[in-house]
Amino acid sequence: MNIGLIGLGKMGGNMARRLARSGATVYGFDVSADTRAQLSAENTNIRAFDSVEALIAELPAPRVVWMMLPSGEISESMFTQLKGLLAAGDLIVDGANAMYKDSQRHAAELNAAGFKFVDAGVSGGVWGLANGYTIMLGGDKDAVAQVEPFIKLLAPGPDLGWIHCGPAGSGHFTKMVHNGIEYGMMQAFAEGFALLEAKKDFGLDVAEIAETWRHGSVVRSWLLDLTAEALKEDSKLDGLQPYVTDSGEGRWTVLESVELGVPTPVTASALYARFASRGNDDYGMKLLQLMRNAFGGHAIAKK
Amino acid sequence: MNIGLIGLGKMGGNMARRLARSGATVYGFDVSADTRAQLSAENTNIRAFDSVEALIAELPAPRVVWMMLPSGEISESMFTQLKGLLAAGDLIVDGANAMYKDSQRHAAELNAAGFKFVDAGVSGGVWGLANGYTIMLGGDKDAVAQVEPFIKLLAPGPDLGWIHCGPAGSGHFTKMVHNGIEYGMMQAFAEGFALLEAKKDFGLDVAEIAETWRHGSVVRSWLLDLTAEALKEDSKLDGLQPYVTDSGEGRWTVLESVELGVPTPVTASALYARFASRGNDDYGMKLLQLMRNAFGGHAIAKK
Repeated sequence: MNIGLIGLGKMGGNMARRLARSGATVYGFDVSADTRAQLSAENTNIRAFDSVEALIAELPAPRVVWMMLPSGEISESMFTQLKGLLAAGDLIVDGANAMYKDSQRHAAELNAAGFKFVDAGVSGGVWGLANGYTIMLGGDKDAVAQVEPFIKLLAPGPDLGWIHCGPAGSGHFTKMVHNGIEYGMMQAFAEGFALLEAKKDFGLDVAEIAETWRHGSVVRSWLLDLTAEALKEDSKLDGLQPYVTDSGEGRWTVLESVELGVPTPVTASALYARFASRGNDDYGMKLLQLMRNAFGGHAIAKK
Repeated sequence: MNIGLIGLGKMGGNMARRLARSGATVYGFDVSADTRAQLSAENTNIRAFDSVEALIAELPAPRVVWMMLPSGEISESMFTQLKGLLAAGDLIVDGANAMYKDSQRHAAELNAAGFKFVDAGVSGGVWGLANGYTIMLGGDKDAVAQVEPFIKLLAPGPDLGWIHCGPAGSGHFTKMVHNGIEYGMMQAFAEGFALLEAKKDFGLDVAEIAETWRHGSVVRSWLLDLTAEALKEDSKLDGLQPYVTDSGEGRWTVLESVELGVPTPVTASALYARFASRGNDDYGMKLLQLMRNAFGGHAIAKK
């Protein structure tokens, strides 16, 4: 049970811990020397290497190397590097939130060069260490079979919370849709709590309401659990900016809905709300001011 | 521990059972003689009456009478009837999905006539019997205190899953927002599963994916549990019409968002998707055909 793990950040670090605690030997690499030192000090089953070359040289073949890096350029350059280091029959797992079409391309390129490839959508955030990770796999049967022993350790249970979805790309596709759903659910809660907070004449305690809904209500969910916990600490949110970033999967879900011609108004609205939160509709709103002024003489708010 | 319960349908019937099993005596009324017979046969703590008059005559004062009727006309006429039967100091709980402004009006009218009033938003569906009901209460402190012993039996736990939100109306307001959130969450799941199903080249098993997501994923929730269960039975859904009704709370949530000036794009989109599912945008779609034909000569699909 030897596995290479490249990228030991919030997700990868805890995956290394969960694998190591379950008895697997993790050959880890991270760009941060501190992270490497901390993880190898924590568990002797984690062997941290200061270069990818050293890791690959030590990891017994046939190798399973799991990449847990940000998708895009950083991942792309690691793919290139690994192709130069691995031997035929070795297997790369991409556990990033990668665009599934990139994963289809990686599969084709790696297979052509004699390597195996599995795309793994991984959900569970920083809580995965304790609860296990939901894992959605795409790839050939034999490739997935080779990864399966590690998946059974990472998942919430050996036969719970993981799935071989289909061919290469389908794991990341399924994870993308999962995250699209997440956008809609989060925004649904955000809108509801905003209404409760705005209804001043009732003096509602939104934190208490969130806690109440956790028990027996139709909206009970892990996201509500987290929301209730956060509101308990601070329900006024005065110290925060109303600014929400997005990391790609919501956009890809909406792009996919356009490609498939399947309407996803809630997912798109949730994504657009985030764009608006960052001021990306400011120009449009300024223009509306001008139009209202032009036809109705309505006052203009200037800086 | 005596309580009147008017309306013993899907919700009210199970509430009667849960109260009776916990030792309360339920003085029940329903328009259906079969329902009355069945419930009183099930548990000797449920005494079913064949008229509201008989129920009120037997129920010891000060009375607590819980209405579990459809909101609107049926509820309104029961309010009128009860006002003619109850004595000063008696208390009415409205457990319907009533519009909170109606509940504010009922509170004012009943208080003026010497009665007490509590509005109770009740969530939990047909599962409440086993799991308990999430209950959101609005009303004066002394009125809520009078109802509290029954609430502790109905809720998932004596101090879990129920809340005194604020003044009269605030219980139904909070329940309304809860249901608005539910609309958005449901639509988020619907859109995600529709994308998975539409991506034919991956041959995804949506039922298996739903089951996988239940364990460890960010979208895990009671709604997902129910969805997974339903998809396990039938994931093709060929026998169903793509037609979704709505019962008011989604509309009220969107109306409230307009009154408060708080944007709820996801809630509104989820509501509009239901309207569209019923063909309510057919006229607009027909008109789009004509416009496309007019400027671009695009073909028109006629009946």
